[in-house]
Amino acid sequence: MTKSQSAAGGVALWRQIADAIRLDIVGGKLANGDQLPTEALLAERFSANRHTVRHALAVLAEEGVVIAEQGRGTFVKSIRRLSYPIGKRTRFREGLKGQANTVVTNTLGDRIDNASAQVAEALGLKPGAKVVRLEAVSLADGVPLSRSTTWLAYRQFPDFAARLTELNSITRAFESYGFPDYVRAMTRISARHADVEETRLLGLAPGAIVLVSEAVNADPEGNPLSYALSRFPAERMELVV
Amino acid sequence: MTKSQSAAGGVALWRQIADAIRLDIVGGKLANGDQLPTEALLAERFSANRHTVRHALAVLAEEGVVIAEQGRGTFVKSIRRLSYPIGKRTRFREGLKGQANTVVTNTLGDRIDNASAQVAEALGLKPGAKVVRLEAVSLADGVPLSRSTTWLAYRQFPDFAARLTELNSITRAFESYGFPDYVRAMTRISARHADVEETRLLGLAPGAIVLVSEAVNADPEGNPLSYALSRFPAERMELVV
Repeated sequence: MTKSQSAAGGVALWRQIADAIRLDIVGGKLANGDQLPTEALLAERFSANRHTVRHALAVLAEEGVVIAEQGRGTFVKSIRRLSYPIGKRTRFREGLKGQANTVVTNTLGDRIDNASAQVAEALGLKPGAKVVRLEAVSLADGVPLSRSTTWLAYRQFPDFAARLTELNSITRAFESYGFPDYVRAMTRISARHADVEETRLLGLAPGAIVLVSEAVNADPEGNPLSYALSRFPAERMELVV
Repeated sequence: MTKSQSAAGGVALWRQIADAIRLDIVGGKLANGDQLPTEALLAERFSANRHTVRHALAVLAEEGVVIAEQGRGTFVKSIRRLSYPIGKRTRFREGLKGQANTVVTNTLGDRIDNASAQVAEALGLKPGAKVVRLEAVSLADGVPLSRSTTWLAYRQFPDFAARLTELNSITRAFESYGFPDYVRAMTRISARHADVEETRLLGLAPGAIVLVSEAVNADPEGNPLSYALSRFPAERMELVV
């Protein structure tokens, strides 16, 4: 343990520095794209050594709050968090309209699976029932925004994956089965650290956070149509209810 | 479908068993870390066969409610995430009813502040307008669940803090100003690492994640009443829309 880690009230100094910079950003003292003071200046301001300042900046970079540009300095990252509206009619592409020029969903694969207790309950099936399972990543303007797994009853939607590929829209795929409309029945939101696969597919730094949404879409009568588990990089996305 | 799945009123027996055990946990008959009765005892209690009991336990394990330890038995898992329902009528205490025996909100302090651009926009005020600012921590069964900062227009609610202390309920404090009802106008949900103060007040480990909700409550006509920034430990709480 370095000296800096045993500072003030047991709180590591690098963490206090990171918090102070975060506050400067949240409070508007530092705006998107602004250059941070140099390491030397920050070290002076916090009575810390440069190693400690560097550690604080590395943590902020990992969180996606700042970006270090070789030879130029460290800047407040101008990532604009996209807002994904969650409501009765929740559509991913529509929801991001006006925030991104292109929203693309790439299907990574599909397979027939047996429903786990959780999937079965969400879809109103018996555990073990056959379900279609789709894996996908969605990108907005080329930046990965969502890694999703979707389950549907096989009996009802045996060739959903093929229709999705053909029609390139979940809404239109449901339409083709005679469901011109669907509504969001339930959304459960939690957060955790990204796992290895998510880190890779979403292009995240180790230690990045994902917002996890579990969602059930239903027909207008309330019969469940699909159950989806979506992971959104917290640094790029927020959910608006 | 096994015999046990066609029991009582169409509700599978394994589901009834799982629900009963879940109730025992929520109701405090079984505490965190407690060992569940043996499969044989549970089978007797529910007049079920052991296969059915095993299925119920497997479902609970999958939900993260219990954990099976090889050769030792099944135990109540010591992380129980509470679900906070967010909807048109969002009330913290009511929302946690049935999930916790006691929900207590401790006010850490209050002061008169000038509205930042963000607060002003949320409350429909001019930036810099006088606002009441309340800091609080809420605990469920003694465990910190939320760290919140709430802003209200000073002009409208000059002594809100005093009334809150007296009435011990936000709902009743609003009532005392002639607002018998309020509705959730907007909720924005994001996630990040807890800062030092949150870590301390919420009793978290360094690196813990908080779900952050920004919420505007309004009167039934849609006029904003309060703006709150709440931080929930992601390991203890999830939000259900």
